[in-house]
Amino acid sequence: MKSPPRRGGRPRVVIAGAGFGGLTCARALKHAPVDVLLIDRNNFHLFTPLLYQVASALLDPGEIARPVRQLIRPLRNADFLQASISGVDFEGRRLLTDHGAVEYDYLVLATGAQSDYFGNSSIAEHSIGLKQLDEGLAVRNRILAQFEAAEWTDDPVRRRMLLTFAIVGGGPTGVEMAGALSELIRFVLRKDYRGLDTNEVRVVLIEAAPHVLSQFVPFLREAAHRSLERKKVEVMLSSKVESVTDSTLRLADGQEISTGLVIWTAGVKASALGATTGVPLTRQARMTIDPTLQVPGHPVVFVIGDLAGAQDGSAYLPMLIPVAMQAGKHVAACITDMVAGGGAHAFEYKDPGIMATIGRNSAVAQIRGLQFSGFIGWVIWLTVHLINVVSFRSRIVVLVNWAFEYLFLDRPIRLIVRAKD
Amino acid sequence: MKSPPRRGGRPRVVIAGAGFGGLTCARALKHAPVDVLLIDRNNFHLFTPLLYQVASALLDPGEIARPVRQLIRPLRNADFLQASISGVDFEGRRLLTDHGAVEYDYLVLATGAQSDYFGNSSIAEHSIGLKQLDEGLAVRNRILAQFEAAEWTDDPVRRRMLLTFAIVGGGPTGVEMAGALSELIRFVLRKDYRGLDTNEVRVVLIEAAPHVLSQFVPFLREAAHRSLERKKVEVMLSSKVESVTDSTLRLADGQEISTGLVIWTAGVKASALGATTGVPLTRQARMTIDPTLQVPGHPVVFVIGDLAGAQDGSAYLPMLIPVAMQAGKHVAACITDMVAGGGAHAFEYKDPGIMATIGRNSAVAQIRGLQFSGFIGWVIWLTVHLINVVSFRSRIVVLVNWAFEYLFLDRPIRLIVRAKD
Repeated sequence: MKSPPRRGGRPRVVIAGAGFGGLTCARALKHAPVDVLLIDRNNFHLFTPLLYQVASALLDPGEIARPVRQLIRPLRNADFLQASISGVDFEGRRLLTDHGAVEYDYLVLATGAQSDYFGNSSIAEHSIGLKQLDEGLAVRNRILAQFEAAEWTDDPVRRRMLLTFAIVGGGPTGVEMAGALSELIRFVLRKDYRGLDTNEVRVVLIEAAPHVLSQFVPFLREAAHRSLERKKVEVMLSSKVESVTDSTLRLADGQEISTGLVIWTAGVKASALGATTGVPLTRQARMTIDPTLQVPGHPVVFVIGDLAGAQDGSAYLPMLIPVAMQAGKHVAACITDMVAGGGAHAFEYKDPGIMATIGRNSAVAQIRGLQFSGFIGWVIWLTVHLINVVSFRSRIVVLVNWAFEYLFLDRPIRLIVRAKD
Repeated sequence: MKSPPRRGGRPRVVIAGAGFGGLTCARALKHAPVDVLLIDRNNFHLFTPLLYQVASALLDPGEIARPVRQLIRPLRNADFLQASISGVDFEGRRLLTDHGAVEYDYLVLATGAQSDYFGNSSIAEHSIGLKQLDEGLAVRNRILAQFEAAEWTDDPVRRRMLLTFAIVGGGPTGVEMAGALSELIRFVLRKDYRGLDTNEVRVVLIEAAPHVLSQFVPFLREAAHRSLERKKVEVMLSSKVESVTDSTLRLADGQEISTGLVIWTAGVKASALGATTGVPLTRQARMTIDPTLQVPGHPVVFVIGDLAGAQDGSAYLPMLIPVAMQAGKHVAACITDMVAGGGAHAFEYKDPGIMATIGRNSAVAQIRGLQFSGFIGWVIWLTVHLINVVSFRSRIVVLVNWAFEYLFLDRPIRLIVRAKD
């Protein structure tokens, strides 16, 4: 591989991962006297909060993913390399990738998180996560293919199995997916599959804790729970999944659910890169770091986002986009200071609040002590997400799609398609 | 498989293929006293004239493909089955599919066309066609992946290979793809890959005949040829492809082109279904039919679209959308008459004209003796295609994408992505 360009011997900052943390860090280094190399295994940045809308046939990939090269175009000091990252050589100051080793002066590890199946291979094999764009497309393909198969089978047991969709995990992703899937079925697929009885369709949300959305205050949890039930989602609380086959989900209490699709949102852990570094790991396989976000003993290496085991007092910061973005800005400021001869300072997180939507007209939001639910919560959710979709064009296209869905109860993207190899 | 629903013993019309011919036929039977079953291997209808825009990263699949079930929703007498069609049992009046045999009273064969590699397995194996949606996505993935690889290789020979794109076939598809690809590179990728010298990139259009767009009058052919050259497409005429490997295209005259991507638009033949029926085939593997579009000896079986060897005087009708749509309407009228005790009548094609676009501001159109080129041709092309995109929502989204591309020279969908299996 050829070496990344050097612009007059300036220090090189290598950023591993073009998610919210890595991208924010690269942008915040725009005017710093450094050369930035952003590396990701995909050529796009993914707006993960709307991935469930790809999975539920409302948006196309192009609406929630943007080419990294387009996003860094305004940064004259940044380059992009599409490569898989396999490890770090701290002594040699080299990041190891499938395109060879890349030298750094400063390194920012921001490779994010992955689904955690807690070592249960039957779940890993027979369920689909909702972390990657290809998983969103796979869920969409599977939902539609199961409806097609159900329409033409004359075996009622098999039809029940094909029409039962299990979502494991009652966090925001699971709740949003369950709400969107239920609406897809009740508003859209019901009209597409006139030979099917919609009452046979089940959307089951399975959560191990005694309530959904445990990050939220009890009042909002209960509002979300009621909203899910109004949307005909079967919410099963205090239920742990023991195993999954291609047609059955078995709970720890022995109960079995016959289902053709299990969507796994119940576990998340940091990307596998952390374990390769030799740095001690904390909860969820996150890397232990100093309050400055530096790796202990390696002051030119920073960790941000889901991979970083950053603490706020005694609690670990949640795996959320605002944490990653604020950390990205923090690290950019530290590196700028260090290049100028200064040092790193401690990271402080400012919580902007959390929110989750449960389909049409319903969301819960918890912002600086204020609580919103129902329609008002939904308007707040819509506004925040539309503003944050990463490009102006996408904002228009997403708005058109949302408006059509809202007015005509339509899901435009009900296509079973994959790229030819 | 369960039987398709019967609505009071009405005759069943089975339509094999949900392309322009099959879909038009189903729609034209909306008020006929028949039950319609539309069958396609995909769950979507594809607006093929814009497939090259998916391949050149301007549109997402959702903009040019619509779920068949959504399209037939207003038809209360129509059902859909997603299945691959393998043959016809004329005696038993059954269409054979991978979901079992489907009985018919009337059968309309409309399975369209496929790429023809003229028995050359090296071309079949090492090139990508532009007939199916997955091929459009594969071309897009390959173009972008080759630019990524080219940016980081330090081998100039390999870089030349990765940056040479060969399009074989100078018909409308090849010409439109070449123009769109050249603009993608010169307007968009040039800014994304600042480390690459755009002068190293080659878009080569290879045509066996002595001119491109041989269907058009000489004046328009020449206008298209000049337009391609202005867009830096290398047009090689009177050149036949002999073989292709994963890095080389070899012409019949011995010349070799080092290229990492060969897009094949040079040959098309009717779908393989024709050969399984025992009905004699004409040119391009199309089925021999009566002037009424009936299969000789099987008056309840009609053939339309690219699969039909329909003749206008002594010439075969071209494989074009208007032919398929007019034939679909014709057959619907014949079946309606036959159900009422009448008979089929001869098909007559009314030529609405042909057109092709060569990127921004340039197209050629030939409509009822009138000829248009350049900007006026392009405005006509835009209008016709925008009106015909199959849904209102798509029309808005396509317009937004086209407007952004026109104003900002941007291609929004530059994503390398495929569904997880």
